[in-house]
Formats: sequence, structure tokens, C-alpha cells
Amino acid sequence: MSCAMVLSKEITLKGHEHESKPTFNFESYMVQKAISINQALDAAIPFKGHHNKIQEAMRYSLLAGGKRARPVLCIAACELVGGTESIAMPAACAIEMIHTMSLIHDDLPCMDNDDLRRGRPSSHKVFGEAVAVLTGDALLALAFDHITSVSTMGVPPTRVVHAIKVLAKSVGHEGLAAGQVADISSEGLSVSDIGLEQLEFIHLHKTAALFEGTVAVGAILGGGSNEEIEKLRRFARNIGLLFQVVDDILDVTKSAQELGKTAGKDLVADKITYPKLMGIDKSREFAEKLNKEAQDSLSGFDSVKAAPLFAIANYIAHRQN
Amino acid sequence: MSCAMVLSKEITLKGHEHESKPTFNFESYMVQKAISINQALDAAIPFKGHHNKIQEAMRYSLLAGGKRARPVLCIAACELVGGTESIAMPAACAIEMIHTMSLIHDDLPCMDNDDLRRGRPSSHKVFGEAVAVLTGDALLALAFDHITSVSTMGVPPTRVVHAIKVLAKSVGHEGLAAGQVADISSEGLSVSDIGLEQLEFIHLHKTAALFEGTVAVGAILGGGSNEEIEKLRRFARNIGLLFQVVDDILDVTKSAQELGKTAGKDLVADKITYPKLMGIDKSREFAEKLNKEAQDSLSGFDSVKAAPLFAIANYIAHRQN
Repeated sequence: MSCAMVLSKEITLKGHEHESKPTFNFESYMVQKAISINQALDAAIPFKGHHNKIQEAMRYSLLAGGKRARPVLCIAACELVGGTESIAMPAACAIEMIHTMSLIHDDLPCMDNDDLRRGRPSSHKVFGEAVAVLTGDALLALAFDHITSVSTMGVPPTRVVHAIKVLAKSVGHEGLAAGQVADISSEGLSVSDIGLEQLEFIHLHKTAALFEGTVAVGAILGGGSNEEIEKLRRFARNIGLLFQVVDDILDVTKSAQELGKTAGKDLVADKITYPKLMGIDKSREFAEKLNKEAQDSLSGFDSVKAAPLFAIANYIAHRQN
Repeated sequence: MSCAMVLSKEITLKGHEHESKPTFNFESYMVQKAISINQALDAAIPFKGHHNKIQEAMRYSLLAGGKRARPVLCIAACELVGGTESIAMPAACAIEMIHTMSLIHDDLPCMDNDDLRRGRPSSHKVFGEAVAVLTGDALLALAFDHITSVSTMGVPPTRVVHAIKVLAKSVGHEGLAAGQVADISSEGLSVSDIGLEQLEFIHLHKTAALFEGTVAVGAILGGGSNEEIEKLRRFARNIGLLFQVVDDILDVTKSAQELGKTAGKDLVADKITYPKLMGIDKSREFAEKLNKEAQDSLSGFDSVKAAPLFAIANYIAHRQN
């Protein structure tokens, strides 16, 4: 199924099967949210001319497009528990800044050594390695600066502090960075050395942790209950892992042109992936299982309000790049 | 004057010249504070065994010693405006984590390519470049996680949010990272290309910004008034610049053994420094001027309570490594 097909698919919601059957237009939803997010990201780093190289480098990577899946998830989680897009937006931008930082650092020659990102030369190819390292650092710092601006919107400051703590934990040695180090440490090891448990540890930290932080932060700022936050965390853990399984599958089945980044890198880097460990077909089955578990985690929420999250899970499961 | 001499010097405070003339023992103060700070840093990243490489790498650099000048400044600023060491400690640790992050990234081959730090091999020499990049990222994230723990100590959450904003700004594209990028961009340029203004921009951002953030955060958490915070910011800007001028002087006058890091790097990297721009003697005069301006910024504060800050300024001015 093509990306456009998934995007344009109207999703019929359970429990609304009469005359006025509401449908959820995922494509329109994503386009609308992406416009708001891109505007907010653009405003977050006003450009002060070409002599300001770090701002130029931050904007180059942050405003390079991308699906904005994480910020949309943050907003959707916030709205699901009764919050608004405005309340979620500073956190949504913060999460995209953190995600962009991780891409810039991940592309460095000492890491994945990737020359292409989102169809353009990677940050270090344009600005040099040193500036790329610092650009990532500055984006990570800006994320924590930017998220605090929600406190001017009437959100109780205790919620803001809680959200910052959860966000920071999802990035550091209990989250994203821990997963990346475990990933690097597993390079060159054979399939027999690394089991599913270790691969899952890597992806739960490297990918799922930030997804989990993303929805938790949205739900916290939106005033969600502990039970709601926990359900959304479970949802995000599943789609996070799902995202990575699909990424692994795409890496071995798609060309660089289709992906907008160098394809086959995992094979070259001799990384353990789901397809290597369980084959393509079993990987696809696993992806479907994760998608189902993600959707099951949303039981109990209003199905109309939860429609964006159901749709995002399906989109991640069936994305083609 | 040796470091030990500066440390052991008892400072007599103005306005207390009668029988019970109180003196401030800087050495004892610094030793006591450093013990508390090192204990708090040690507790901030519990070590879960050698299989946890990122925690090992974080602890390797964070617990490698150092003078702990920044965390002490944070505590001293907090205490000066009526706060306590306990209230300042999470922020003080956060600042040391950020400082350590900047050292790890600064030492990378694509940056200063420094093999020695605090008398030991740099992070990337021990753990590899990729892990060093991620260790820095994780320390930066942990800083923002860790500082939130002050909210359990009865500090109003609005103050915590304010402190986080100020701290984040001091690290990113308006602070530390901006200064480092400007520094890199100036490499290879001749003295005639870079004036004092550009050199000051570099150091006000690369070094003074984090000092300024440090005392501002301490003062905010301690409940300081806007006027008090502004005075302390001025103090910190001066000692931050002072720190860098002295660093530049030491780099051309001391050996690697004395510094605990590779000496003469600035000369090799063809960096513009104060000694290059104005000569050693004028650089020393400039350092004294900055020290005086720093001390003048503290006028109006209780001189007994401000004693640690006066002493730290003197220490930075006269340090030998």
C-alpha cells in the first residue's frame, strides 16, 4: 500500500454506523497538523542572517520536512485527554527538536556515517562535523527552553515540571541514548550472539522511549489521569517498536530514492535487524501484532477522539518510507 | 601564586575589623562544598555494572574530579539570596553535567581533538567517538531531568520552570553552543581578521553564558529578587570572561602536566586568544579589571554572605591550572 493510499484512507469509527457515520480523514488531519507544527518550528528559531551559523544549521535540519509523526502524536495525546493543540505545541516542537538532534548525531561519520537525510545532504556534510555536533547539542537545549513556554498558557507549573522530567528521561541514559549505545555495541556481533531480547532492548530505548515520552508529555500537559497516561505509554511503546520493525524491513526492501536516505545501511554496518533475526515474513507478522496491541491499548478512550492515534498506528505499520 | 596558596588564604571581610573579626576560609569552604557535590553527583547516576556502557561513560567523565567551580557558584548564589545548599544541589549537579557534556564534545577529534582531560584519557579515547557523543547527549538530558527533583523540596514550581528556561538558554544557540561555533569559525583567521569584539563574543557565549546561567539558576531557586539576580548575572559575566582570559594565559605559559590537559593546543589550532591579541601583560591587566568589576557587582549584598563569591572571583583570577 502506498503512503498516499494510507494517508487518504478514510477511517470509519466503531459505534457510529448510522446515517451520520463520521469518518476520520487522516490525510487532511496530518496535513493540517504538519502546517501548524512547521509554523511553530519556524517561529522557534528566528533566523538572524548567514553570519549566525548555528541558527542556520539548526533550521537546516529542523525545517527539512519529515512526517512530524512525533509532534502530531504529542498533540493527539494531549487532545485525547481534554487538552488543546496550543497547549501541546511547545512540547510537540521540543520533541521534534530532540528527534532532529538524534538524527544529526546519528548521521555523523563516527556513528552511522550517513550522507543523506530526508533527501538532502546530512548536517555534517553541509556544516562540518564539529558544527553538526554542536547543532545537535543546541537543539537539545532549545527543546527544554521551548517546552517551558507552555507555562504562560495557564498550564499548572507542576504539570510543566512533570512533563520536562518525563521528556528528559526519554532522551538520556534510560532512553534514546542508552538504546543507541546498545545498538553500537551490538555492531559486528553475529545473529547467534544477539537474541530477540537484546534487539528489543535496543529498539525499546532507541526508538520507543521517545515515542513514549512524546505521548506521555502530551497527556500530562493536557491534564490526563495516571491511568490515561499509562495506557498512552503502552500504546506508544508498541508503535515505537512497530516503527523500528517497519524501518528495518524498509531498509532491506527499498531504494535510497524511495527512502530519502541511504538504503541498505544496516546490512553494510552489519547491524542486527528484525529481518535478519526472524526473516521478512515473520517481521511483517510481528509488525501487525504490535499494531494490534497498540490499538488495544486505546480501549476505553472515546473512539472519535482516539481516531488520530488509531490512524497513526496504521500509518506507521504500513508506511513505505 | 600557587593554587594551594590561593585556596588556603583566609579572606578578611570588610566591615568586620573588630575583636570578633570573622574570616572566610576559602579552602575549607571549597573542600566541604566539593565533597557534598561529588556525593550528589555520584548518587545521580547509580552504576548498574560494566554491561551498562553509557552509565559507565557518564560516570567516568562526571566523577573525574575538577574544581566544581560552577556547582559551587550555583550553591553560593542560592545561599546568598536566602536559599540553602540542599535547594541548590540538583541544579548545581545539572550544571556540572552540562559542563562535562561540553568538555566531552569539545575533546572530540572533530572539535579540539584533545586526548587528555583532567589528567586522564578523554572520553572518546576510552569509549570511542560514538559513545562519547552519546554520553554528552545523555548528560545534557540528565541535567534537565535532575534539576526537576528540586520541586519535591518545597520550591515553588514556577521557580523551577524559570530556572530550567534560564539554564537551557545558557547552553544553546544563545549561549555555550553559539560561542563554540563562533570559536570554530574563527580558527585559521589571522589576528587582523578578528578583533576584541569578536573574541569577547566567543567567550561571553562559550564560557560566561554557563557561569551566568549557573548563578542565575541558584538565585532563582533561592528566591532572589530580579535586582539580585541581575547583579549576580553581571558578576558571573565578568568571572566567566575572566576564567577564559586566565585559561588563554595558562595555555601558553603552563605544561600539560601542570594543566592536566594538553597544553599549547590553542597555538597548534591557530586559535585567536587574548595573549595573541593583546600580549600576556595586557591580558593579565585585563584579567584584574574583570575581577574588580565582578567584585563591584556584588556591592549591596551582605559581605559575609557574599564572601564565597568574592573568593571564587579571586581564585579564578589567580588559578594556576
